Amino acid sequence: MTAGDMKLVVVGAGGRMGQTLIRAIHAMDGAALFAAVERPGSPFVGKDAGELAGLGPIGVTVTDRPLEAFVEAEGVLDFTAPAATIEFAGLAAQARIVHVIGTTGCSADDDAKIAAAARHARIVKSGNMSLGVNLLGVLAERAARALDAADWDIEIVEMHHRHKVDAPSGTALLLGEAAARGRGITLAENAVRVRDGHTGPRVAGTIGFATLRGGSVVGEHSVMLAGEGELVTLSHSAADRSIFARGAVKAALWARNRKPGLYSMLDVLGLN
Amino acid sequence: MTAGDMKLVVVGAGGRMGQTLIRAIHAMDGAALFAAVERPGSPFVGKDAGELAGLGPIGVTVTDRPLEAFVEAEGVLDFTAPAATIEFAGLAAQARIVHVIGTTGCSADDDAKIAAAARHARIVKSGNMSLGVNLLGVLAERAARALDAADWDIEIVEMHHRHKVDAPSGTALLLGEAAARGRGITLAENAVRVRDGHTGPRVAGTIGFATLRGGSVVGEHSVMLAGEGELVTLSHSAADRSIFARGAVKAALWARNRKPGLYSMLDVLGLN
Amino acid sequence: MTAGDMKLVVVGAGGRMGQTLIRAIHAMDGAALFAAVERPGSPFVGKDAGELAGLGPIGVTVTDRPLEAFVEAEGVLDFTAPAATIEFAGLAAQARIVHVIGTTGCSADDDAKIAAAARHARIVKSGNMSLGVNLLGVLAERAARALDAADWDIEIVEMHHRHKVDAPSGTALLLGEAAARGRGITLAENAVRVRDGHTGPRVAGTIGFATLRGGSVVGEHSVMLAGEGELVTLSHSAADRSIFARGAVKAALWARNRKPGLYSMLDVLGLN
Amino acid sequence: MTAGDMKLVVVGAGGRMGQTLIRAIHAMDGAALFAAVERPGSPFVGKDAGELAGLGPIGVTVTDRPLEAFVEAEGVLDFTAPAATIEFAGLAAQARIVHVIGTTGCSADDDAKIAAAARHARIVKSGNMSLGVNLLGVLAERAARALDAADWDIEIVEMHHRHKVDAPSGTALLLGEAAARGRGITLAENAVRVRDGHTGPRVAGTIGFATLRGGSVVGEHSVMLAGEGELVTLSHSAADRSIFARGAVKAALWARNRKPGLYSMLDVLGLN
Repeated sequence: MTAGDMKLVVVGAGGRMGQTLIRAIHAMDGAALFAAVERPGSPFVGKDAGELAGLGPIGVTVTDRPLEAFVEAEGVLDFTAPAATIEFAGLAAQARIVHVIGTTGCSADDDAKIAAAARHARIVKSGNMSLGVNLLGVLAERAARALDAADWDIEIVEMHHRHKVDAPSGTALLLGEAAARGRGITLAENAVRVRDGHTGPRVAGTIGFATLRGGSVVGEHSVMLAGEGELVTLSHSAADRSIFARGAVKAALWARNRKPGLYSMLDVLGLN
Repeated sequence: MTAGDMKLVVVGAGGRMGQTLIRAIHAMDGAALFAAVERPGSPFVGKDAGELAGLGPIGVTVTDRPLEAFVEAEGVLDFTAPAATIEFAGLAAQARIVHVIGTTGCSADDDAKIAAAARHARIVKSGNMSLGVNLLGVLAERAARALDAADWDIEIVEMHHRHKVDAPSGTALLLGEAAARGRGITLAENAVRVRDGHTGPRVAGTIGFATLRGGSVVGEHSVMLAGEGELVTLSHSAADRSIFARGAVKAALWARNRKPGLYSMLDVLGLN
Repeated sequence: MTAGDMKLVVVGAGGRMGQTLIRAIHAMDGAALFAAVERPGSPFVGKDAGELAGLGPIGVTVTDRPLEAFVEAEGVLDFTAPAATIEFAGLAAQARIVHVIGTTGCSADDDAKIAAAARHARIVKSGNMSLGVNLLGVLAERAARALDAADWDIEIVEMHHRHKVDAPSGTALLLGEAAARGRGITLAENAVRVRDGHTGPRVAGTIGFATLRGGSVVGEHSVMLAGEGELVTLSHSAADRSIFARGAVKAALWARNRKPGLYSMLDVLGLN
Repeated sequence: MTAGDMKLVVVGAGGRMGQTLIRAIHAMDGAALFAAVERPGSPFVGKDAGELAGLGPIGVTVTDRPLEAFVEAEGVLDFTAPAATIEFAGLAAQARIVHVIGTTGCSADDDAKIAAAARHARIVKSGNMSLGVNLLGVLAERAARALDAADWDIEIVEMHHRHKVDAPSGTALLLGEAAARGRGITLAENAVRVRDGHTGPRVAGTIGFATLRGGSVVGEHSVMLAGEGELVTLSHSAADRSIFARGAVKAALWARNRKPGLYSMLDVLGLN
């Protein structure tokens, strides 16, 4: 740790994304791993966080006491699950630190709690922390605004590895929200999430989704706008989960000197 | 019509595919339009078939009496619907002519009736008459045989125009059958036709489908084989529905001097 | 022709694009074919333009005297070659009508002459008349501006049919210009048009091109932005050359009541 | 090392691919790292090979004396450069061990020397060690054989990271060779490696190449077969260089009990 480095906590430190976060902090200038948190009873508690991440020992022992870690830290990176994230948001608000949330699958109720915590914490929340995907959302919104819904149909297709348990991906929904915003409609009322059997003709103005699963694919997303005789496709391909981790560290560094509030990666990346 | 040209009947002559068939026959050597059939009551009955197809008058008047047309003809091209196709198969058997069937959506019972008719008719039936798609099926079967199901996941994605009323496409199912054959499994027992919400991890050995609809897309199909760290994708793109019509005419010419029986485009194309 | 329809001339009426323009005018409201022009000595002179285009006779005979056609018309649609286009621009300026130019391969000198003509004519000139491609240019410029040239490499790949005689396509160059504009650089100084043999590592800030040719492909273009661990791809696929013809007619209708000047499809489509 | 593990040497141990090979051997059953070789003067000589590869110390010190390493080993994994590979092939022949060669860019003369060494060594040489790419080659050959060269144009496009110094990639050439074999022609006489400016129409029967470079792309290859109105695309995407390393280890294990000779990955993978 260099003097002046932002002191970061990784929660869910033993998971695949937790380890990737630890490696990203290790590799990037301006940030340092201050603590690593796992849930009580996790076999990772007491282990060296660097060892877990394949870096060799770094002198940070995994703990199951988040609040103790947060009060001395400046930010927390969180790609866990909704229930844990809500709890961490409360603790981050108490500690008045930065909370970067990459957790997906939050309900409207969860989101309300996160917004409440953002009165005291500086929260950056996004379904996808990569620069490319956030840019893609901006472009999809622009395209959906320019192309008349009567003539152009929007479809979103995504592919992820065989271990992913939900569909469509949070990023696919994020892109769908962007397209819906461009058209001035709500996604919930216009999404067609599956097609099978006799579907009838496509209804103009809907936004369709299709989901592929297989192999070790990190994340492929395409927004397609299909008109008469032509097709516009806007795609993002993630080759390596480290792009999300680097984005999260970048978000923490960006939020360090902001006022409390709820921010998105569009703010971090200057795309808003 | 040149002496020696194969005398062909187009059924469903007034529809979009019927018109495409009329133009294909007109453009190809060795075949001639002998009759054009529509169902009784169709507004197209009595019209000139060439006019309908945008060719200018060719002296063939659309009729609603298929048997009269069939008995003097040598083959019938049929991209209609299952009920009509069953009836035409019976008539083609009576007339002992070639029956090229591009109709999709036939039930097992329909298929049994077509097989019965093939004792007297020479029937070529395929879910897709294009050379490229049939080759793709052969390649997909080969790939599925070579790549171990424990390590490689098969997914099939297709896109068609906004007017298509069923999903997945007949061609997607044909490709799925080819992949299943390569693995020595049945498609029906291993197909995953939709994914939405909490799906759980992908089950090894399944074959997934995803469906996109939009614009005027003629037909896009991809078979994806996704392994650890690598992905093989086999795709076909149809830019123009005339490839199916040309394939049907080619099938009729091929079947002209065969024995009665049920053939596929793989036979026609020498891919078997 | 309906009263009030814009009276349009198609030059190069006997070529593939000329015929497509004739069919587009025929199919669209608000426009009518007033004259069809071919070069002196063309075998098409004296023929009915509708017959040439597969529409049946429409009473417009192909002429080799453009000026006579232009003086009574309101606009001319021109997808010919640079030398002819320069001449037509002069005539359109004399006749003070709309000149829609889809011709590609113009030199800087040609462009200066077209700009001069635009003091009197209303000229819309674009390397690609489709809505989708013009939108793609806007998005490519936005993306190139957002993504740092030190970290993100831009590549443009295009595919066209086997008859195309130049490379890269005018549209690929148009997209390259858009990307260069987004980065505040000139394309000419930063384009890498081919790679073969020992190329050395890629030079940061360059814009690479790759060209594919085959079959009957109408036009595929992709702008790729490749960063560390992620890839953004913006693509357009043209399935049917009629999109360019419809765009040209739309441009003529748009320019009908404008002041003389040089416009682009971005103006027509409201993307500027 | 477990008794019975095949004793492998990695040459070029300090490079990116050398480190990936060390990790692959470490992770796979049946193989063990016996020695790690770098050229004299390399800063890696004397270091622990496991440390270099990010595995922590494993007790194998990098040496600059290949022959000493080879005589006690059973196989050598070699992704270096042609000159070094020729030398290693001679040493492997002396030691009568397995030599797996992933080196690209060998001249006809280099290949002759490797063939000579294969009288005593068991050599497996391939431009690409992945299962997917080798399958793709088989499929491309099959497709090229099935689709008539008069009607179908073959194009090969590849993309790699910004550090790659040659074009087209060895794998693209390998796929081109496969396609040429399917057509019964030689690639050298029919390859079109670049297109720029006035190219004229595509010459039937040629095989075109296009090269993209950018970001950190591990390797994307597509073989496209473009006909009238349809397009068949066969693609491979490598997400992770470890697939090549695992393929090399698999090749060494397969060759362990073979007779001396020159083998390809098609032999290893049972695709011949």
